[in-house]
Amino acid sequence: MIIDCHGHFTTAPPALGEWRTRQIRAYEETGARVSPDELRIGDDEIRAVIENGQLKLQKERGTDLTLFSPGAGKMAHHYGDERTSLDWSRVTNDLIARVCGLFPGRFVGVCQLPQSPGDALAASVRNSVTELERCVEELGFVGCLLNPDPSDGYYQAPPLTDRVYYPLYEKMVELGVPAMIHVAMSRNPALHGTCAHYLAGDTAAFMQLCLSDLFTDFPELQFVLPHGGGAVPYHWGRYRGVMLDRGRPPLEESILPNVSFDTCVYDRRGMQLLLDNVPVRNVLFASEMIGAVRSVDPETGRRFDDTKFTIDSLGTLSDSDRQAVYGGNALRVFSRLDSVLKARTTATAAVKEEQK
Amino acid sequence: MIIDCHGHFTTAPPALGEWRTRQIRAYEETGARVSPDELRIGDDEIRAVIENGQLKLQKERGTDLTLFSPGAGKMAHHYGDERTSLDWSRVTNDLIARVCGLFPGRFVGVCQLPQSPGDALAASVRNSVTELERCVEELGFVGCLLNPDPSDGYYQAPPLTDRVYYPLYEKMVELGVPAMIHVAMSRNPALHGTCAHYLAGDTAAFMQLCLSDLFTDFPELQFVLPHGGGAVPYHWGRYRGVMLDRGRPPLEESILPNVSFDTCVYDRRGMQLLLDNVPVRNVLFASEMIGAVRSVDPETGRRFDDTKFTIDSLGTLSDSDRQAVYGGNALRVFSRLDSVLKARTTATAAVKEEQK
Repeated sequence: MIIDCHGHFTTAPPALGEWRTRQIRAYEETGARVSPDELRIGDDEIRAVIENGQLKLQKERGTDLTLFSPGAGKMAHHYGDERTSLDWSRVTNDLIARVCGLFPGRFVGVCQLPQSPGDALAASVRNSVTELERCVEELGFVGCLLNPDPSDGYYQAPPLTDRVYYPLYEKMVELGVPAMIHVAMSRNPALHGTCAHYLAGDTAAFMQLCLSDLFTDFPELQFVLPHGGGAVPYHWGRYRGVMLDRGRPPLEESILPNVSFDTCVYDRRGMQLLLDNVPVRNVLFASEMIGAVRSVDPETGRRFDDTKFTIDSLGTLSDSDRQAVYGGNALRVFSRLDSVLKARTTATAAVKEEQK
Repeated sequence: MIIDCHGHFTTAPPALGEWRTRQIRAYEETGARVSPDELRIGDDEIRAVIENGQLKLQKERGTDLTLFSPGAGKMAHHYGDERTSLDWSRVTNDLIARVCGLFPGRFVGVCQLPQSPGDALAASVRNSVTELERCVEELGFVGCLLNPDPSDGYYQAPPLTDRVYYPLYEKMVELGVPAMIHVAMSRNPALHGTCAHYLAGDTAAFMQLCLSDLFTDFPELQFVLPHGGGAVPYHWGRYRGVMLDRGRPPLEESILPNVSFDTCVYDRRGMQLLLDNVPVRNVLFASEMIGAVRSVDPETGRRFDDTKFTIDSLGTLSDSDRQAVYGGNALRVFSRLDSVLKARTTATAAVKEEQK
């Protein structure tokens, strides 16, 4: 089974964005709340966008399953207050659950957390604990997106290793779910979203982890760094060296037991470097389709985000390494995934039995 | 001649840092200024730290010349007001000029600019024009460091493509000097200086340039991105793709005539990727020694920042490409360098003649 561990519902029906616009405007103008019940999206609408979008590409590319989360940029945690983020997260996570319900063999949920910047950070972490528990236990999700910069482009939050985040990590460990560390939009004109802020966030988070003893406190905590880890694998020696400079244990001991990288590197040589520099055990297949880059690469005739084509065309992975990157590592890191899939198979079989 | 285009005076005698501490404290406490004349550093002190530091490594590694600038992190543009930055820049640039005067065959100056964040930005750009002119015309410098984030870790400034910077670009073109786009320190606990903020700044700046028509306005403007361009070469396809998505001309046409990358990639595979993905014409040899990473790589027995060893051990460059990376490209981008070196040779010859 080929598992794409990084996909967002970037093609959600327009009603979602319209609800969000109303939510933000109402809060900014009068402090009013917009009820999640006001969002109306039919199953047919969801089916249409998925079947013409992500599912179509899954089939074309020969991938089986996507770990599917709300649009990352659109998490936009800086808007409103912690209630704003909580309502918005419930709305988007419920929508992801509906996608998963309509296509149970194709999508498993990863939730957005109701984070907020500034003074609301601690309260928003507590809300995140509650929302994570709801998504995992009630909706069958297997992970979450954790935004290291809820200020959306100004890096106002403390490092992810700060104790303010510990309640979330306790819950993640308890539930057995990892976080993909993924920034949201950038509202900073100096930091382009997908081509600067995303990569900066990945890189910053990795270094935060390198400087801390977080994994001594949480030996079972698992993180995934998207976009191939930002700048990290390209500068692997810089990180190896700085750990030596600081008398810290090597990356293999201190970081890699708990941190993996996805393969959203839209570059053939970059992909090769990722697979060569980072141990195979720490690389999880992903494409982030349909997302940051949508063009076809004139050099290959394939879309830049067709990372499966890139990996396959490199042809350098052994069979067992290929299996690890394409699915085995995801099943290990997203440790609830296997049982979620089995439960779905059982449920689908029961429905079929009933329909006989 | 092997030219290292990226070295900072990180080993400056302690009196420099002590002057800076007094400067900051006096301004913060009473708004008072500390005169640059209060800084006392003897030629012998300068000789000692250079001979035991950068010059020693130059000789060991077989490089000839370093384009030498003040400590980048220590530019710390967020302190004080624009006068604070102006005084500090003059002090550090004058010190660089003294290094160059003591070792004329080994160091050529690149100046710090007196930038400031926030409301002082525009005034500080005007001061930067004046200081750049002084450094180039009076001190014989050949380039400058341009900080894309004078807030030092919070990315508060507009993109480098904003018109507020145009007076500086006009002067750079008039003088024929490039800027290395280099952030200073990070005072943001979420962004480690050399392993997050530096790489984030490089990446952000590249994308700012990709989104603008700056080089239509300044076809002769030249920038160097340090640290191998942050995350950019690793994600080269992402940038190629996003230019296609936006209907913009390819990188080769729109960016590479004006932007080069240095070789401060402390990783063998990363270095290979840089040399493979970025046209050789756009790669300038650099090590940033003595700087971010000081350890010896146990895998090679060489220091991580011995980038000459890394490039040589790859052995993939043709003779002409090797010449371009090691010196030819620097002589083209730092277009005053050749005449500065010739003038120094003439001056040295005249002194010798006189001493006969």
